Order: sequence, then C-alpha cells, then structure tokens
Amino acid sequence: MTLPPAPVLVIGCGLIGTSVALALAAHGTEVLLDDTSDAHLAEAVSQGAGVGLSSDDEPRFVVVAVPPVHAGAVVVEALHRWPQALVTDVTSVKSRIQDAIVEQSHAVPTGAGRYAGGHPMAGSELSGPGAANAQLFEGRPWAVTPTAATRPEALDAVVDLALQVGAVPIIMNASAHDRAVAVVSHVPQVMATLTAARLNDAPDNHLALSGAGLRDVTRIAGSDMALWRQILGDNAADVRSVLAEVRADLDRVIGVLETGDDAQLDAVLGEVLESGRRGTQLIPGKHGSAPSRLDSVFVQLADRPGELSRLMAHTGEAGVNIEDLRLDHDLGRPVGLAEISVAPGLGETLVEALTSRGWTAYR
Amino acid sequence: MTLPPAPVLVIGCGLIGTSVALALAAHGTEVLLDDTSDAHLAEAVSQGAGVGLSSDDEPRFVVVAVPPVHAGAVVVEALHRWPQALVTDVTSVKSRIQDAIVEQSHAVPTGAGRYAGGHPMAGSELSGPGAANAQLFEGRPWAVTPTAATRPEALDAVVDLALQVGAVPIIMNASAHDRAVAVVSHVPQVMATLTAARLNDAPDNHLALSGAGLRDVTRIAGSDMALWRQILGDNAADVRSVLAEVRADLDRVIGVLETGDDAQLDAVLGEVLESGRRGTQLIPGKHGSAPSRLDSVFVQLADRPGELSRLMAHTGEAGVNIEDLRLDHDLGRPVGLAEISVAPGLGETLVEALTSRGWTAYR
Repeated sequence: MTLPPAPVLVIGCGLIGTSVALALAAHGTEVLLDDTSDAHLAEAVSQGAGVGLSSDDEPRFVVVAVPPVHAGAVVVEALHRWPQALVTDVTSVKSRIQDAIVEQSHAVPTGAGRYAGGHPMAGSELSGPGAANAQLFEGRPWAVTPTAATRPEALDAVVDLALQVGAVPIIMNASAHDRAVAVVSHVPQVMATLTAARLNDAPDNHLALSGAGLRDVTRIAGSDMALWRQILGDNAADVRSVLAEVRADLDRVIGVLETGDDAQLDAVLGEVLESGRRGTQLIPGKHGSAPSRLDSVFVQLADRPGELSRLMAHTGEAGVNIEDLRLDHDLGRPVGLAEISVAPGLGETLVEALTSRGWTAYR
Repeated sequence: MTLPPAPVLVIGCGLIGTSVALALAAHGTEVLLDDTSDAHLAEAVSQGAGVGLSSDDEPRFVVVAVPPVHAGAVVVEALHRWPQALVTDVTSVKSRIQDAIVEQSHAVPTGAGRYAGGHPMAGSELSGPGAANAQLFEGRPWAVTPTAATRPEALDAVVDLALQVGAVPIIMNASAHDRAVAVVSHVPQVMATLTAARLNDAPDNHLALSGAGLRDVTRIAGSDMALWRQILGDNAADVRSVLAEVRADLDRVIGVLETGDDAQLDAVLGEVLESGRRGTQLIPGKHGSAPSRLDSVFVQLADRPGELSRLMAHTGEAGVNIEDLRLDHDLGRPVGLAEISVAPGLGETLVEALTSRGWTAYR
C-alpha cells in the first residue's frame, strides 16, 4: 500500500475532517490542520489530529472538509496557494462542485489536474471535532471521483488516502456517483421522512401498534435536517428523477387500490411487491460479499445486565459466528428478544445449542 | 388475571394459530385444534399445541386463524355450530371481516354478540406450524376490536387470551384499527417496497455505496408478497388515503427540486424534513415507555466467535444496561462495528469503561 503524499493538510475540523486527520495521524502521517473556527482547530489539535497550519508550511496533499456551500471555493484556493499540492474534498454530491472547480481553476497552475473528488460513505448523527474518531471510515465505501482533467497522481492520492484510513475506495465519475447516492441514500432518506411524517396526526393508541418494521423504515428520518436540506438541493436533478420513478409506482398503487378489482390488484400489487423484494436482494452483504439469506434465530432474554453476555458466551461455545445481531424493542414487558443472524444452515445448530443450555430459542 | 374460557378451539394451524395454541397449552389451558390440512394438524399436535377436534367436543372459545379470505365464513360457521361459544379471529384488517360477520350472523343464535375481533402484531418471515413458537406474542401489542354487538364476555375473552399468551391488549374499534395499521404498518411496507424497487436498475458499483440506512429502510420489503398483496387489498381505502398524503408531500418535494430556487428549497424541504423528524420522535420506546433519545456508543470488534461475548461481559462489569444493540454491516473488512444504545447520560461512562478495558469505543 502506497501512502498518500505528506504532509497532508486537512481544512475543516468538523466530524469528517477531524476523523480523517485522526486516522492519518494514527498511522504516523504528518497532518496539518486549518479551520476558520479557532475553537474547532484547538479541539482537533488537542485530540492529536495534527498541528495547526503555519504560513510557511508546504502541504503536498490537501483534504477539504468544509461545509458543501464553501467547498468549491476552498478547493480552488488551495490549488492556487500550493501549486505543487494535490487536492480533494469530501462533499456528498460531486457534479456541482466538480464543475465549479474545473471552471474556476483555468488560471491556476496545472489547473484542475491536481484535483480529484472524494466522498466517504460514513457519518454520524453528531457533528463537530468532539464526535470525531479515527475508526469512522473503517470498512466503509469511499467514492473517488476523478474529473476528465485529473492527473494519475491526484487520483492515486485519494485512493491511498481512503485505503490508509481503512475505507474501501470505489472509483466512479461524478455523475454516476450522484445518481448512485440518489438511489442508495438520498431517496431512501426522503422515503423515510415521508413515512415518519404520517405519524404526526396519529393518536397515541394508534402509535401503540408500532412494531420493529416501522422503526427500521423511519430511523434515518431523525438525522440532521440542515445537512439533508443542502444535500437534496445539491443533488436536485438526480433525486428528482428517482423520486419521479417512485411517484409513477405510487400512482399505480393508489390507482389500483381505488378500483377494488381483484385481478388488477393481483397484477399491479404483485408486480410492485415483487420488484421491491428483488431490490432488497441486490444490496451487498456484509464484508462486500454477495447478498445471502442468513438464518435468523430468535432468543428470549431478560432485560438486565449480563444476560446478553451469557447468550454470547453460549453462542461462542457452540462455535457459531454471529453475522448480525439486533435486540428487538418490546412493549410493556421486562423481557427482550434478540435476533441473531448466522450463516445459512447454522440456524438449527444454534437453536439446539442454546436450547440445551436453557435458553428459549427458536427460528 | 382471568383465564379465557376453555376448552379453546384453534382453527387453522399455521404460524399464528399454532403459536397461540402452544402459548395457551404452555399455561395448562385445554386446547383443541382443527385444520383443513391433516399434515398441518398433525404437526401442531406433535408439537404439543393441543389435540385434534372431535365431533362431540364443545369448545367454549374459538380462535379462527385461517387465511384472511376464509376467516369471515369460518367465524360465522363457528358461531352457528357452537351456540354457546365465544369466537375471535386474528386477521390483519378488521372492518371488512367484521361487516361480513355481523351481516351473515343474523340467523345465528345470539348473533354476532359472541364475536370480537383481534389482531396480534407479531409474525415472522416464515410460515406454517413448523415456524410456530409459544413466545411469538411476548410483549407484542394485540389489538382487540369489539363490534357494536359484542357482549362483554366476548370482549373479555379476547383480552384474557391476549394477556395469557403474553401480549399487550389494546382495545379499539375496527375502523380505528385499520387506519392505525395503514399508518404504522401497511404504508411503511409500501414505502420500503418502492425504495427497494429503485435498486433493480442500479449497476453493481452504484450498489456498492449502500450503507446501513438503505438496509434499514428496505428490510421489510423482503417479506411474504402473497400475504401483503391480500392485506393491502383488504385495507385498500385506508392505505390509499394515507398514500394520497404521501403523494401530496412527494409532489411538493419534486416540485421544489424542479425550481432550484434556494428560498423555496429551504422552505419546503425544511418543513417536510422537520415533519419527518418529529414523526420519528412519536414512536413509543422500548417497553412502551415514552420515546427517549438514547446514548449511542460505537465499538469496533473483530469478526470472530467470542468477540461480542467479551464486549458484553465488559459492558456488564461496567454496570450499564444495554437498551438496544445492533451490529453494523461492513464492507470488505474482517471487522465489525457494534452500536450499543444505553440510557441517556450513560454513554460516556460506557465509553470510558470499555476504553479502559482495551476496546476502541466512541460516541
């Protein structure tokens, strides 16, 4: 693995910038930091993310991690100020910023050739340097988006950066990236929001019927609104186009529910539901492996410290590796339900092992 | 706690019927079983769910757990055949079946007074008696829907049934129930489906950017299509009405994305996103308590048996109770991320306790 060129300057000591700096610093890379907020800069430095930028520093690689609305101008400024440096950014929507950078950097030495975009698919409900951590990108996709002008060393630098912080670089052009995130991230966010919005008018006893499915569908609707307002605006064309497809399907469903005709209900609902079911099977599985149906095992457990520990110990004794685990919420009872996902074929083994150890376990 | 009248006859030995019978039998209640399928009946009996119905048996309480399309007729037949028995059913949509029963049971002794509907909010991706278990209803809501004609002893019987199998009875009328499940269950199902359907045309490298949010939003779209086709059709009016509200919001979002006008984007997206965020806060929390924001702690862990066990043991030693736990999927790395939710204020305590024990933990 090649290391990205150092010293690396990280501009913007928020959650993402400080986390990048911490991850690089943890691997011994020399990191310089800059932020318009002295407090953010001081906090990032105090965490060991790097040292504050001095006027005579000559960074070889600049990572721009400022809010999307400023990112384009800061990238161009960096290209201009350090004519030898390579530059990248971490904004969530790439086409708009790339166009601005290419347009504005004609007068800059070697122009936009030294820039390649990036987008780490990681975040948190929290923000600021206090929420940063060196492991934020571990195992996460990091989209790398070269422009037509990007020189090979600029592309390599972003790929090496992603690898060094533990991410999985995925190279694609900006327009493909923006379409992809519209489908896998921005539209799901809108759908979660529109689903959750329906709850505002529901009486309490209606909401009492809520189950785990509703919680799953709506969870991300609780995220940072200001950021999402900006992301949806920046990726307006792609989001709108995917939402138009949603609306076409939605209109068909509403239309057929109006008819009450059984044959039409079968045809339209069957087709739409099947299309959704097929879609869920296309989502890559854990560790990037092909999607697979895991075996689910349900285990009843008392709601007290130590119970999960005992369960995990017994699962370990059975030699079964847990692929996924969720604790299900529960209504009005001091008891919970753990859903353990294991490799196909191992569910029955685990049920038997747990049952023989006194657990109420079933598939 | 009063016990429901016995013997209880369960008609329909699928997942729900057999689970009800197992839960009742586990509490010593005499259970009779019936099914048009001899194989299903035999399997339920062999599991200890009860004994097959004989022609001279006189059940005092009948639980109809056959597919929705047959349930109304089977309820009326049971009211007719056992003029002393109370009767309930477990179908997911209540108005349609209730209307049919009231209409068809005029000629039946004491009419529909002996019927009250029910709907346990529990299920599984699996079906049939082999997937049944006595704990299926533990802590789950069980909607109880009396008609205008329902006599008190019929209502009591369904409430007592719900309590005996460990569920939380919630009494509401059929139309309120159907509206409630449209909002908290049926429309979320459609939204998950429409989101997942967008993935079918996406190239593999686009899907590689998928994260935990997409998995959450689309998970339930993988459920049994035939059942959902029937549920959506049976609850067509309420589902359509809630979907029409979704479409109105969706049209506003698509419209404002078309304008590209920043002030309008701020106004409309801000309002819609805020409405969704408020909605997520209305979902009842664990054990039916008021919704609360839990502290989240993230812990990095190696992907091997025993790792979670060690983590749980250390969490227990710290005296911190886990409210919710999820293992996050991960791409291309032999490492996972556990997200532990704990009571507000305990996050920092847990981070310190785990860090001091050598874990990489952060908030």
